[in-house]
Amino acid sequence: MAMTKLVYSFNDGNRDMREVLGGKGANLSDMTNLGLPVPPGFTVSTNACNKYFEDGQKLTEELINSIKVELEKVEKSLGKKLGGSKNPLLVSVRSGAPVSMPGMMDTILNLGLNDETVEAVALETSNRRFAFDCYRRFIQMYGDVVLGVPHYRFERKLESLKQNEGVTEDTKLKAESLKELSEDYKAIIKKETGEDFPQDPKEQLLKAVEAVFASWNNQRAKLYRQINKIPDHYGTAVNVQAMVYGNMGETSGTGVLFTRNPSTGENKLYGEFLVNAQGEDVVAGIRTPKPILELEKIMPEVYKELNDISYKLEKHYRDVQDIEFTIEQGRLFMLQTRNAKRTAAAAVKIAVDMVNDNILTKDEAILRVDASQLDKLLHRQIDDGSHVEHIATGLPASPGAATGALVFSADNAEKLVEKGKKVILIRPETTPDDIHGIVAAEGILTQRGGMTSHAAVVARGMGKPCVCGCEALNIDIMDKNVKIGEETYNEGDIVTIDGATGNVISGTVKLIDPELSDELITFLGWADDVRQLNVRTNADTPEDANKAREYGAEGIGLCRTEHMFMAQDRLPIVQQMILSDSKEKQQAALDKLLPFQKEDFYGIFKAMAGLPVTIRLLDPPLHEFLPNAEELAKEINEMKSEAKPAYKIKEKEQILKRIKSLHESNPMLGHRGCRLAIVHPEIYDMQVHAIFSALEELKKEGIDAIPEIMIPLVGEAKELKIVKDNVLKVANQYSHLDLDYKVGTMIELPRACVTADEIAEHAEFFSFGTNDLTQTTFGYSRDDAEGKFLPAYIDKKILPENPFVSIDEKGVGVLVDLGVAKGRKVKKNLKIGICGEHGGDPQSINFCQKVGLDYVSCSPFRVPIARLAAAQSYISQKK
Amino acid sequence: MAMTKLVYSFNDGNRDMREVLGGKGANLSDMTNLGLPVPPGFTVSTNACNKYFEDGQKLTEELINSIKVELEKVEKSLGKKLGGSKNPLLVSVRSGAPVSMPGMMDTILNLGLNDETVEAVALETSNRRFAFDCYRRFIQMYGDVVLGVPHYRFERKLESLKQNEGVTEDTKLKAESLKELSEDYKAIIKKETGEDFPQDPKEQLLKAVEAVFASWNNQRAKLYRQINKIPDHYGTAVNVQAMVYGNMGETSGTGVLFTRNPSTGENKLYGEFLVNAQGEDVVAGIRTPKPILELEKIMPEVYKELNDISYKLEKHYRDVQDIEFTIEQGRLFMLQTRNAKRTAAAAVKIAVDMVNDNILTKDEAILRVDASQLDKLLHRQIDDGSHVEHIATGLPASPGAATGALVFSADNAEKLVEKGKKVILIRPETTPDDIHGIVAAEGILTQRGGMTSHAAVVARGMGKPCVCGCEALNIDIMDKNVKIGEETYNEGDIVTIDGATGNVISGTVKLIDPELSDELITFLGWADDVRQLNVRTNADTPEDANKAREYGAEGIGLCRTEHMFMAQDRLPIVQQMILSDSKEKQQAALDKLLPFQKEDFYGIFKAMAGLPVTIRLLDPPLHEFLPNAEELAKEINEMKSEAKPAYKIKEKEQILKRIKSLHESNPMLGHRGCRLAIVHPEIYDMQVHAIFSALEELKKEGIDAIPEIMIPLVGEAKELKIVKDNVLKVANQYSHLDLDYKVGTMIELPRACVTADEIAEHAEFFSFGTNDLTQTTFGYSRDDAEGKFLPAYIDKKILPENPFVSIDEKGVGVLVDLGVAKGRKVKKNLKIGICGEHGGDPQSINFCQKVGLDYVSCSPFRVPIARLAAAQSYISQKK
Repeated sequence: MAMTKLVYSFNDGNRDMREVLGGKGANLSDMTNLGLPVPPGFTVSTNACNKYFEDGQKLTEELINSIKVELEKVEKSLGKKLGGSKNPLLVSVRSGAPVSMPGMMDTILNLGLNDETVEAVALETSNRRFAFDCYRRFIQMYGDVVLGVPHYRFERKLESLKQNEGVTEDTKLKAESLKELSEDYKAIIKKETGEDFPQDPKEQLLKAVEAVFASWNNQRAKLYRQINKIPDHYGTAVNVQAMVYGNMGETSGTGVLFTRNPSTGENKLYGEFLVNAQGEDVVAGIRTPKPILELEKIMPEVYKELNDISYKLEKHYRDVQDIEFTIEQGRLFMLQTRNAKRTAAAAVKIAVDMVNDNILTKDEAILRVDASQLDKLLHRQIDDGSHVEHIATGLPASPGAATGALVFSADNAEKLVEKGKKVILIRPETTPDDIHGIVAAEGILTQRGGMTSHAAVVARGMGKPCVCGCEALNIDIMDKNVKIGEETYNEGDIVTIDGATGNVISGTVKLIDPELSDELITFLGWADDVRQLNVRTNADTPEDANKAREYGAEGIGLCRTEHMFMAQDRLPIVQQMILSDSKEKQQAALDKLLPFQKEDFYGIFKAMAGLPVTIRLLDPPLHEFLPNAEELAKEINEMKSEAKPAYKIKEKEQILKRIKSLHESNPMLGHRGCRLAIVHPEIYDMQVHAIFSALEELKKEGIDAIPEIMIPLVGEAKELKIVKDNVLKVANQYSHLDLDYKVGTMIELPRACVTADEIAEHAEFFSFGTNDLTQTTFGYSRDDAEGKFLPAYIDKKILPENPFVSIDEKGVGVLVDLGVAKGRKVKKNLKIGICGEHGGDPQSINFCQKVGLDYVSCSPFRVPIARLAAAQSYISQKK
Repeated sequence: MAMTKLVYSFNDGNRDMREVLGGKGANLSDMTNLGLPVPPGFTVSTNACNKYFEDGQKLTEELINSIKVELEKVEKSLGKKLGGSKNPLLVSVRSGAPVSMPGMMDTILNLGLNDETVEAVALETSNRRFAFDCYRRFIQMYGDVVLGVPHYRFERKLESLKQNEGVTEDTKLKAESLKELSEDYKAIIKKETGEDFPQDPKEQLLKAVEAVFASWNNQRAKLYRQINKIPDHYGTAVNVQAMVYGNMGETSGTGVLFTRNPSTGENKLYGEFLVNAQGEDVVAGIRTPKPILELEKIMPEVYKELNDISYKLEKHYRDVQDIEFTIEQGRLFMLQTRNAKRTAAAAVKIAVDMVNDNILTKDEAILRVDASQLDKLLHRQIDDGSHVEHIATGLPASPGAATGALVFSADNAEKLVEKGKKVILIRPETTPDDIHGIVAAEGILTQRGGMTSHAAVVARGMGKPCVCGCEALNIDIMDKNVKIGEETYNEGDIVTIDGATGNVISGTVKLIDPELSDELITFLGWADDVRQLNVRTNADTPEDANKAREYGAEGIGLCRTEHMFMAQDRLPIVQQMILSDSKEKQQAALDKLLPFQKEDFYGIFKAMAGLPVTIRLLDPPLHEFLPNAEELAKEINEMKSEAKPAYKIKEKEQILKRIKSLHESNPMLGHRGCRLAIVHPEIYDMQVHAIFSALEELKKEGIDAIPEIMIPLVGEAKELKIVKDNVLKVANQYSHLDLDYKVGTMIELPRACVTADEIAEHAEFFSFGTNDLTQTTFGYSRDDAEGKFLPAYIDKKILPENPFVSIDEKGVGVLVDLGVAKGRKVKKNLKIGICGEHGGDPQSINFCQKVGLDYVSCSPFRVPIARLAAAQSYISQKK
């Protein structure tokens, strides 16, 4: 077997080697090849990481040797030696996975320092303060990351030292104080671990590589992967790179930069830097940095070079770049570049701009926007006209508005959300340890940190509103309150944050429906030009139908008539119908329902004039419309104890008896859908009458209605035949109107898929109800599974994700595919759609494209997502 | 298009034309060809019948002409004419479907008589009494069958005439009285229908043909077809045949005859005859006839001829024949022959005897016994040792014992059975109108009628115990009681009948398990030699296991461990386990259960020593083991109103809370099977410990146990992998014992079928759980469907039968087939079985053979059925 290369010099790799080198490593190689100023180094590959786990978490001799070989190359190119007593080489050790996982794994800087080399660095740089500042930082990082010593142990010591010295900023500490601090830090390590801080730089390096490998499986990294659907088997690479210093004085600095604004998409450099600081200071959000444009004033030449490199990199990668750089004594070094994460709004604007600038083709642009992220653009916003007073303003770090109860810790956020509360997580700053709180919260509010701080980046990634660097906040974590001016707000107080303006508002605020931006309209127009799948909506009211049309829906794929039965003015009549003890009384109730249903259908057909409207006849079991048996029993008991008239009690008792007779042990698999229509045809008869008398009226008014009548829960062709014949019998009473209509069926049972050929004989269209099909294929009751065992299944990776959210291609998908094939075998051009929740899920839409459906149908707010996802599916499948 | 021949002379047909001529018609042709004494005639074909219904129930000119042509041939051959004023031809008109439906459709005798021809017949036969006897019979039959005049109208008149004349038997009525009776009968017809009794014999004939056609769709015929799975589209043929007379005096007679005893199989003529009677008198059971052997004394030559013909026919058809004959003035005529219906015991004995006599091959013999009928041989019998006193004795018409409440009408029988009662239907005699009562009853008891009466034939066909001709009964239908000697028994009184002895016993009687007869053992041995499918049993106790072994089970295919959890001494511990609020308490409860489970498994393994035992780990949701929430709430309410101690109430309230938290809206699709094991692995751990410690003990004792551990409700390979790994973890603690065991899974979800290839990677065997698979494939909850809509589905023929009884090949079967193919693709020799109720259903077993399963598993009492059905499937599929 050929040996797998385990370690690559930055000169050996290229951008196509992300899988092996990780994103960071591949781009470092790439930038090196482009001739950009990248400090030399090498990448320990993901192969090495996976091998490390396979070997029971041990570094092999082979790997150690390869690292040694590459290290020597770096030493040779710089004329420095790791652990050298003169001119010693220091390196950074950073994780870098194939897919970006910002802040999720560990980084160690200044590796190579020990009691001896620190003195050499001091001598070399003629900057003893700098040398010991590096040393104390290194000991802390190493202690934290490699040895597992909690970082607050070190920070407390730093704080007390600053107090002793009477300074507030780290940069004001003198060399000797920092030396003293490094001694204290070593003592902390000895005390916590029982062993001395390792003085051998080679040992430091190997242990650091191991620690980065291990961080691939820390809790927060695992959670991040789960949320972002990143496979566990990728592994992380480790980048070992010669150190450059942003903390060597006022001509040094460090920063992060986006080549365009990642929040709005504006084509302008966007970023922040800190003078005299190391990179972690910016990202961690501990000091609030300056906007990148100010760099032009301070170091104009560096700014120009940075600007040129940014342009070059964006051209090279044909995408917005997220860059990390360090300035060491006036000299610019590039430490990282990667495609920038961005808000949905920015993604759309950037895609449109890049097409207009001929950087991207339309197809490419369409693929650049994450369809599920569009959701964010369709969230409700604070009404501009509501003129609310804000209590504080921070940085507008991630757009959107959110309202919730303040919570001061990630754990509490999670707990309250589990109880059904909506919360805003408020923190001095967030760290990767807060990730579960960010997931749980509606929005994030921080006191410190800039637009590229942890909170901002993560919130943007998740599409959650975020306001950060809100310096007016005075947070007391222990007492769980925050002072803003004179006011104190406690845990549980309701606030609203507006991530588009940075405003923080006390209490709730009126929100309005979003408008689609011009760029989004243009962009979705391109998607429409490309896509093959039609997009319909699930709508039960004219209002929803109108909204969906505005968002581009091309018809209604599912109008649930039971929702009409549930309305307050109809429910008593529906109950009357169900509880009646004679055919006559039942028919009388149905006659009363008829005008209501007619009005419903009239409104919906009108709102969707010119587009098809699929009406599903009554689906749920009748007992869903009846009072709860337990409550009624209680009521009867109370009536008895209050000695209410016997005839009234008897009336209730009869209702209870009927409810009990309708009880089912598994209503999901019970007497519902077309099974109802087989036993009680009169209900569908009424509904079909309502449809056709609405059509009659619309025809008179010259409004073009396109009805498709859908029979639910068919499992056998003969069921459909019988029910369809009944539909036609009613419809034929309106034959003088010469109306055009279709009668079709839902395919939502495994047996319907298996016998779809026979069913197709009687169906003018199919619509897959993949929610019920998922329930029956898996044998899961969604109501029960999601509360009981499904979370454990996702957690243990038994299932890659919730099959009710994204269609299970391996199981349910096979049956859908079979149903399509069998249906089309009988009717070549059978129109086939999907109307479950999956119809609005991009991954599921991709599947629908693959199996050749004609349309998807989803809730109105997901229509734009579906339009984009449909286009993306077509483009990527065309390739 | 070629014209379809509509009418066939008896000279034109043959035995292979059952579909066109019906069974009776084909055999009449066949007997004619064999040169037997068959009165001439012709058959109006089933094609004509189907055309009649297609044409909106009208006889076409073409058909009328064809009938005329064939009628003329008969007239010519006999030198008689229908309606002739001299020597007139009389005919019988009888139904005859392709599949025998005894007594279900209508028959008319003596057709051709009118006021004129009756006199001609009187002259011709010099027997005026005979002529008018025929005439009055004909008017009644024609009135009843063709004109729909209720037969009791005629019978009342007959009764009052007999009273007036002071006679008790019809045969004692004089000619003039009978003439008078025929006048009265015509008057009845005029009164009831408003029209005269038709005097034109051609009109009589055509109307009679129509009436027989129409009787194909009468209620009782439809019900019979449904029960016996006879397709509606078969249609019936009509046989028109020259009349011969058994009622021409003491040298005439009529009878029915089986070539062997249809109850026991004994190789001896068996049947009955009546002197001076027409055929309907025997079948209707109105007069009690004489045993056939007595014919030898009365008419030795006729008896000899009959004996010879019987032998010839049995040889010819290679099966026991059920023959109708008439003796007209000493001359024998054959009116019908058909393969005889028989009891299961007779079927087995006859099959074995015919092999021994080289009439049949073993394969043929195996196919001759209806597998589902074997059930009857395995019903419990009255304990011979119980020495019960009987209150009456009738004819042992259909073997088996039955106990139930007396009911005096078929309607009442049906009603009481719907309410869950077991009933014995007691009637003076039964008619085809009683069929629904016979279906409902446990057994049938009649006062009149012989071994070939309606009650006897139908009961034998259904395998229900029947005692008939029990003359000691004095039944009062109106008052619903029966006097036996001095005692009066009322509706609702419990009796037991023993169809093997004819005894009737008051009250219940101890029943014992049946023994397999020697013939059955031989016969099943032949089946075993042939069959490819193994037969296992579903058994949860050593007793069941032993019983099944006795019946030939080759292992246990399903041992349900939850039944052990339900036992009285374990349930409190199980509840403790479920309700415990800490892992420790839960484990303590499990530790208490362990010895019980170990004991269970020890007993079962021991009973099945040397044969495989498949143990299914816990399957149902936990709430099945808890008290009913509603009842508990009631109890708490009562405790409160009785001011019970607060801590006791609180205790109950906590249990109620836990029960409610375990509540599921669709438990069938809920948290059960391996899903429980994923979330609570400790339960399966305990069960596996119990299995292996039982195995340890058995090994010490040198008993050969062959365990197969089965994981239920797997829908995804990873589920099985996790649970299997846990099983192996426990099993490995017993690795020093070097035990042989398998771990496999149930395939009972559509997704398991679709992904069976992946599942097979982790499974050492598959067992299809087709009950759950039927539920999920159809989306039916069995509990709900069978009570709510399934009866309507069968009734409307949406489904051919209950898919929980016989596997739905078109839907569920396709998934089973897929699962087998996918599983075997990965593991070529994967052992696959079925363990649902379908495993004991012959039709489903045939399917299992077809898809290549290794074994079926069924309840102990169905094991012999499965052995036979497996052999039959193999033989018929081999063809």
